[in-house]
Amino acid sequence: MRGLWLEAQAIRLRDDIPLPVPPEGEALVRVRLAGICNSDLELVRGYYPYTGVPGHEFVGTVEEAAGAPEWVGRRVAGEINAACGACAACQARRPTHCEKRTVLGIVARDGAFATHLTLPIQNLHAVPDGLPDEVAVFTEPTAAALELQQQVSVPPADRVVVIGAGKLGHLVAQTLAATGCRLLVAGRSPGPLALLAARGIATTTADRLEPRDADLVVECTGHPDGLELARRAVRPRGTIVLKSTYHGKAEVDLARFVVDEITLVGSRCGPFAPALALLASGRVDPRPLVEARYPLAEAVAAFEHAARLGALKVLVDCT
Amino acid sequence: MRGLWLEAQAIRLRDDIPLPVPPEGEALVRVRLAGICNSDLELVRGYYPYTGVPGHEFVGTVEEAAGAPEWVGRRVAGEINAACGACAACQARRPTHCEKRTVLGIVARDGAFATHLTLPIQNLHAVPDGLPDEVAVFTEPTAAALELQQQVSVPPADRVVVIGAGKLGHLVAQTLAATGCRLLVAGRSPGPLALLAARGIATTTADRLEPRDADLVVECTGHPDGLELARRAVRPRGTIVLKSTYHGKAEVDLARFVVDEITLVGSRCGPFAPALALLASGRVDPRPLVEARYPLAEAVAAFEHAARLGALKVLVDCT
Repeated sequence: MRGLWLEAQAIRLRDDIPLPVPPEGEALVRVRLAGICNSDLELVRGYYPYTGVPGHEFVGTVEEAAGAPEWVGRRVAGEINAACGACAACQARRPTHCEKRTVLGIVARDGAFATHLTLPIQNLHAVPDGLPDEVAVFTEPTAAALELQQQVSVPPADRVVVIGAGKLGHLVAQTLAATGCRLLVAGRSPGPLALLAARGIATTTADRLEPRDADLVVECTGHPDGLELARRAVRPRGTIVLKSTYHGKAEVDLARFVVDEITLVGSRCGPFAPALALLASGRVDPRPLVEARYPLAEAVAAFEHAARLGALKVLVDCT
Repeated sequence: MRGLWLEAQAIRLRDDIPLPVPPEGEALVRVRLAGICNSDLELVRGYYPYTGVPGHEFVGTVEEAAGAPEWVGRRVAGEINAACGACAACQARRPTHCEKRTVLGIVARDGAFATHLTLPIQNLHAVPDGLPDEVAVFTEPTAAALELQQQVSVPPADRVVVIGAGKLGHLVAQTLAATGCRLLVAGRSPGPLALLAARGIATTTADRLEPRDADLVVECTGHPDGLELARRAVRPRGTIVLKSTYHGKAEVDLARFVVDEITLVGSRCGPFAPALALLASGRVDPRPLVEARYPLAEAVAAFEHAARLGALKVLVDCT
């Protein structure tokens, strides 16, 4: 099959990737549309050693699902962590933290920038008929945005600041706006902030944030500097949620976190069903984020586009 | 009065410090015994710019308390944060985070390594008659150890690891042991670990900790390396409590905290009343930690002793 191939921090298009054969319990999915996430760009930069097809945001159509024929022909999004079901983490109902997991396009499992992929059938979520592909392809990042609400409470009266108005920050902001909290998004570029303002979300720049004022700060900058911006904005005993994953270390003055008794919460993959529901209801609309769409044949160019400073979502059409 | 004076990262004994005059609502306390905390040593290293008398762990006798004569002659421990009562943090019942606070021996308020100190009367806690000075002087660090139980739940079945068996780590371990959790303390030096083992607390070294296994890890090393040791020991979705304050920054691979969805909680000053109750009951006994006792006249030597690698508690007799 055709697919994008990542090896030794370089990507290239290949036409000789063997079509995957789904093992028992897994489905073969024909990829329709896939999205480029910052993590994909960080994988190329060496954030995690991975060789294979990258890509974990997709919508596709099930072609084979041995033992579960009702899935064949259905349009699906798919949870990206394939868990063993037996380890301590799985037994403790933390399958996204399975110690033996593979992760679509990230850990030991070829991903979505290809004509086909395989995933456990239990990872699949049917996409409602009315939901266009270019919305459904955002199910995974919308679920990731919702994860923080699984981890920390967001009371309506709380002052919440999102730092970073890029792809993930935008979705985090839209999902938080749906809670009714007092939301403010700080970003660098006027364009992305204007997209949020058009949805009635208050925006500013990081240097204009009230210091030590926010109950909750969500760090979505994708840069090591983001944590310090978040620390300045959060009140004592407040909470910072970290959504950024990037290659490299941050220098952190940990004593400030101790003195101000700040809580820091790492946040990764989230729940698909509420993400699909929010997208289907229109309460979260990711379409303004779509900046470009490339065919799979031009996936390398799509990555180059996505890596531009300030680029928003670049989609890859895999049909 | 006589007192130890910190200025420009140097300490010296002075006999010409003016006796403090307690403002309205404050008491004048004759210091009996004071303890040297790692924060005091870090203050000398420049962790926070402070000029004045250091020291915040003490037991003393009230000499003056205008408008509250019932306090005069009583033996007391004292909360170290003097709050304004009016700011947003105070109104939100976070007086230890008052934005205008002074802090005994740390921020704009002369501390305990002197014959006298002043504190708001509302900060005072009467020491039970049977409690010796050398136990009561540990009220403040025992309260600090208890603070983490105000912040995170410690269920009995949880696997809890304390990293660092120094002064604070020891008290954290003793307070956690009182909860009945599955406790393990990792330290470097055999001596401090033996003190814990003598109390029936399991001990090990950091390199022998089971990786990614603990539900809760408390970082008490006082070193920038401590966070990475804690991260290796905590399970995905587990919690790390940071108790160490030190001068300098740590290099942190934040992506690991995101991928494993670890929660990090900064933890500082804690509740005095339960600390005094635990000390009075004997369930926490800090006396094995006392390594040396110096008169105030030799406070500089006491600091030199406390700064030795692996030194435990050094007390300063201020009578």
